[in-house]
Amino acid sequence: MRNALDDGIYLAESLFRRLAEETADPPGVSRDAYGPGERRAHELVRDEAAGLGLEVTTDPAGNLFATIPGRDRSRRVIMGSHLDSVPHGGNYDGAAGVLAGLAVLAALRSARATPPLDVTVMGIRAEESTWFPYSYIGSKAALGILDPDVLDQVRRNDTGRTLADHMAGEGFDPVSVRRGETWIVPSSVAAYLEMHIEQGPVLEREQVSLGIVTGIRGSFRYRSGRCMGEYAHSGATLRTDRKDTVAATAQLIAALNDDWERWDEEGRDVALTFGILSTNPEAHAFSKVSGEVSFALDVRSLDIPTLKLVERRIKSLATAIEVQRGVSFDLGLRTESAPATMDIGLRQRLEESARTLGVSHRVMASGAGHDAAVFAGAGIPAVMLFVRNAHGSHNPEESMDMTDFAAAVRTMHDFIVGFS
Amino acid sequence: MRNALDDGIYLAESLFRRLAEETADPPGVSRDAYGPGERRAHELVRDEAAGLGLEVTTDPAGNLFATIPGRDRSRRVIMGSHLDSVPHGGNYDGAAGVLAGLAVLAALRSARATPPLDVTVMGIRAEESTWFPYSYIGSKAALGILDPDVLDQVRRNDTGRTLADHMAGEGFDPVSVRRGETWIVPSSVAAYLEMHIEQGPVLEREQVSLGIVTGIRGSFRYRSGRCMGEYAHSGATLRTDRKDTVAATAQLIAALNDDWERWDEEGRDVALTFGILSTNPEAHAFSKVSGEVSFALDVRSLDIPTLKLVERRIKSLATAIEVQRGVSFDLGLRTESAPATMDIGLRQRLEESARTLGVSHRVMASGAGHDAAVFAGAGIPAVMLFVRNAHGSHNPEESMDMTDFAAAVRTMHDFIVGFS
Repeated sequence: MRNALDDGIYLAESLFRRLAEETADPPGVSRDAYGPGERRAHELVRDEAAGLGLEVTTDPAGNLFATIPGRDRSRRVIMGSHLDSVPHGGNYDGAAGVLAGLAVLAALRSARATPPLDVTVMGIRAEESTWFPYSYIGSKAALGILDPDVLDQVRRNDTGRTLADHMAGEGFDPVSVRRGETWIVPSSVAAYLEMHIEQGPVLEREQVSLGIVTGIRGSFRYRSGRCMGEYAHSGATLRTDRKDTVAATAQLIAALNDDWERWDEEGRDVALTFGILSTNPEAHAFSKVSGEVSFALDVRSLDIPTLKLVERRIKSLATAIEVQRGVSFDLGLRTESAPATMDIGLRQRLEESARTLGVSHRVMASGAGHDAAVFAGAGIPAVMLFVRNAHGSHNPEESMDMTDFAAAVRTMHDFIVGFS
Repeated sequence: MRNALDDGIYLAESLFRRLAEETADPPGVSRDAYGPGERRAHELVRDEAAGLGLEVTTDPAGNLFATIPGRDRSRRVIMGSHLDSVPHGGNYDGAAGVLAGLAVLAALRSARATPPLDVTVMGIRAEESTWFPYSYIGSKAALGILDPDVLDQVRRNDTGRTLADHMAGEGFDPVSVRRGETWIVPSSVAAYLEMHIEQGPVLEREQVSLGIVTGIRGSFRYRSGRCMGEYAHSGATLRTDRKDTVAATAQLIAALNDDWERWDEEGRDVALTFGILSTNPEAHAFSKVSGEVSFALDVRSLDIPTLKLVERRIKSLATAIEVQRGVSFDLGLRTESAPATMDIGLRQRLEESARTLGVSHRVMASGAGHDAAVFAGAGIPAVMLFVRNAHGSHNPEESMDMTDFAAAVRTMHDFIVGFS
């Protein structure tokens, strides 16, 4: 058994190298959702799964399933994660969970055991919302809960083409997705396990290999916020005559960052980020008061009351600044995702596996969103395993040590074998 | 005399129309410094001046001089302003002062009088620092005080070519300019008078035709400031682990705007503008803490101690924020211009002319910079006349009423005739 698992880990390592090569887009990799990069990643995993003699299927949204049939075929355990990446991203965000699952299946296959229930690896589509400005497209489609309007209204940022058009272009079936057909029946899933690199520095700093996740933050986002005022001469316009959108937006950002410090002190879980901020390059000048600013705001929390509190605060601050500075804020399209709690029973089993194997681990919350939140939201017992990773994620510098990856695969294998 | 002046004003009005047509670049006009737009404006004025029988010359930097010779040719009065515009600017910023001067000369010519000293209209090159990121190129060159390094080190924003290259390309003589040859000897100038549209809303709001300027603000500028931190995942990175350049820059901007309010209350003259602000479009994302922000900062004041105070405050704030947020600020290249006081005797004469003619006027400071500051700095008695203008300047909506323009021309004519 030990040798079979080593072989599985070795297989995953070689797949990491091939993925990096074949989806390279220097610096880093680009696996564009419903485009050539993601397609190539799915092909690699599908071919490997077929080579291992796994049962391979694809749902109407293009999610990939590789399964070892169990004695009871009406129930299954899913090890899933996504195969898309952000543009010029790292090799591990998403793919690590799929390749870890494949390593576990390879070991189970070598052992020629028939598990008590189906064990499936799921390669999920379009998790990174940098391509389509919408979260969790693949997992929602598989569960039959993707808002049908999204197919025609959400367009890929770079191509301008709709999600339905991209799905059809890749050979999938947006018509079935629009009907909300359920590919994964929640009651049939005994557990959803998602392994993922940690996207923050906690495990690295504490020198711990694995994180066992308690919950996943929900969010609301304003991706295309604007502040509108009036362009004016920077020398000739009195302070009190200005409608300065840079001063107004800076005031909003600074005040919210002050609030965040206070919320932290109160023990509220908040993450608040203005990741995009810009005057209009077509119209701004160093000698002009800027008449417009665009910005994106991402707010996350583990609990809904805090999300509501922060949103009320943003709106009241914006209104006060509008009055004070003669500008107007338009927060634009709002998207959101719900916070999720990981299944306590599954968490304890995962901890037990790590403890048994002597793998260093800690319990922690997930600041970032993951497909596991969608599964949990659909009533499926879900759990996540984080792997230590240096230099954060969504960049070419992601750095997961293969020793930690191997520890995660062993822990997952022990956890899966426990379903008997 | 009255008819000659009306003819002069009529001539200027027709020149405004031709200028607008021939330098059109919708929306508005573009008279690019040392490029085709400015060249066309100079050609129009030169041809008209020659047609009026004026003595027309050009200095090595391409500044245009149209003169009625006086009885004493060793002394002169100059009515000057610039003929370049910002990109897609308005028709009046700069050109109004030159055409007003030409209207006065046309009237003097009609009257066939020989004035006691030379009376010159000067069409100045490259005042708008949007083309070359440097202030007052033409007037400094005429006075022999343009820093010779500027010729080779300052490049036009759009073409990337040096100032020397552009000057030579337009047929002028950067070699002479580099030597610092003095085309205008300060001691020979009895007065420099610059008429200009007001670039703020004061005259418009108070329903007054003319402003008689007490002083011109000086400035310091950081046109390419940067804040550098670290890109990080917006969900997975703790507040205390962030090096968030948006939060840091917003804090700087918000704090300085608060300070400005206090400085206003203390009666200090300050104008403080962040006109450009941007995360990096190549690297930012709504779900990433931004690792860099670029910005431009323009600070102006009528007095040097205030400029120094504001600059010290910017630096101490930046240092404190660097420590607090783990970022670093690089203010980049600094440019500056000195504040200038207008000659009290000339101001009183201009007021007297306006009062005699019954033209509504008020005394005011100039928030914006003008070539008159360079003449004053060189020890030449200088004065400025503002004309009421709606919708600010540096945009196609500039709107000077021809009745106000005519009032300004009459006031200038009376002022000039007074030099006898």
